[in-house]
Amino acid sequence: MGVLVVCSGGLDSVVLAHQVGKDRDLDRLLSFDYGQRHKKELDFAALAAADLGVRHDIIDISNVAQFLTGSALTDDVAVPDGHYAETSMQATIVPNRNAIMLSVAYGVAAGAGAREVAIAVHGGDHFIYPDCRPGFIDAFRRMENQALEGSWEIDLYAPYVDKSKADIVRTGAALGVKFERSWSCYKGGATHCGRCGTCVERAEAFHLAGVADPTDYEDADFWRSAGSP
Amino acid sequence: MGVLVVCSGGLDSVVLAHQVGKDRDLDRLLSFDYGQRHKKELDFAALAAADLGVRHDIIDISNVAQFLTGSALTDDVAVPDGHYAETSMQATIVPNRNAIMLSVAYGVAAGAGAREVAIAVHGGDHFIYPDCRPGFIDAFRRMENQALEGSWEIDLYAPYVDKSKADIVRTGAALGVKFERSWSCYKGGATHCGRCGTCVERAEAFHLAGVADPTDYEDADFWRSAGSP
Repeated sequence: MGVLVVCSGGLDSVVLAHQVGKDRDLDRLLSFDYGQRHKKELDFAALAAADLGVRHDIIDISNVAQFLTGSALTDDVAVPDGHYAETSMQATIVPNRNAIMLSVAYGVAAGAGAREVAIAVHGGDHFIYPDCRPGFIDAFRRMENQALEGSWEIDLYAPYVDKSKADIVRTGAALGVKFERSWSCYKGGATHCGRCGTCVERAEAFHLAGVADPTDYEDADFWRSAGSP
Repeated sequence: MGVLVVCSGGLDSVVLAHQVGKDRDLDRLLSFDYGQRHKKELDFAALAAADLGVRHDIIDISNVAQFLTGSALTDDVAVPDGHYAETSMQATIVPNRNAIMLSVAYGVAAGAGAREVAIAVHGGDHFIYPDCRPGFIDAFRRMENQALEGSWEIDLYAPYVDKSKADIVRTGAALGVKFERSWSCYKGGATHCGRCGTCVERAEAFHLAGVADPTDYEDADFWRSAGSP
């Protein structure tokens, strides 16, 4: 009955949506509004769903997120500039975010009769996000096998968990993904800022992949001086 | 830094709240509004928090629950009468409910600096609810160890997972819990109906425990004819 893709509208999950759309039975895209400071990337998730001709649901979990304090993504804390892997980026951790989003996605998949939930976690996030590591993905899959035993069989598809963001850019290029139809910047400006952690990571990934970067950055060269992890 | 107790206002979780209040460092009670057809039990969770002198938060996840279809607890499906363990009660399954609630509870615990999340799942629920079984509890604990690795250490406390509801009644009686300050009935009437699955299970548990049942049931004897699982 198909695959439900957790899609934020960022580069990784937009490429994943296109990959599933080509190789598997894509059912729908699912986004989360957790009260992030800007919702611009959700428009890009909607764009990906339209491009792929599938349903797009946005689940508002901001009622939940207001209890999860201490993160620059949702709180009134300044977004740090610099490389994603630096300690300063730990300010962008939302406690238990992937477990919450995946648990909800599994519930939605069960209700929709979908057989697989797909998420675009990747190796570049391993440094500071434990809930992006292979150990978490495996443990989550086993937990859901127990939770849904006898009622639903839903698998977790995380094809990028051992790959780099540069690998994802290469995959997207091979699929013909229009990368400008994805949004990475933590700030919600007219163009990508080029200075925040995800902008630096994005620009660097295109460079490492040897793929031309179509992104319009306000500060296009900042990433070169931000340094590798 | 304390224990966060997931408390619906039902008999099991109210007894658990009192047990944690006596034996451990109770931090707060956490309830979920998932769009259940009546919210009466949430008032009893608030009552328990007041009795224990701790904070009580209600997290509204009805935005999530509207995507989780097919359950009599939230949908417009008739609540079946009869014993809890009967097949008809499968209509009351909310897909992935405990994984969703526990994931959110862990996120709240992380934000609050709590060290433990407590939940009152028990052996009587094992027949039809896979997410109440020991295998689920163990797998969930391991999943969260991975998800929060290096940032937070939070344990899962489920002391009733191998006990019966009658055991919980005995525990509550020993603690002096005022059972009438808890609510089990799936219907939201002035008194417990006595006929729905949780009313039958409640009345039977007092009988099996040999504890006087202070509950005011509309149909006080129905449970005797509903039969054991």
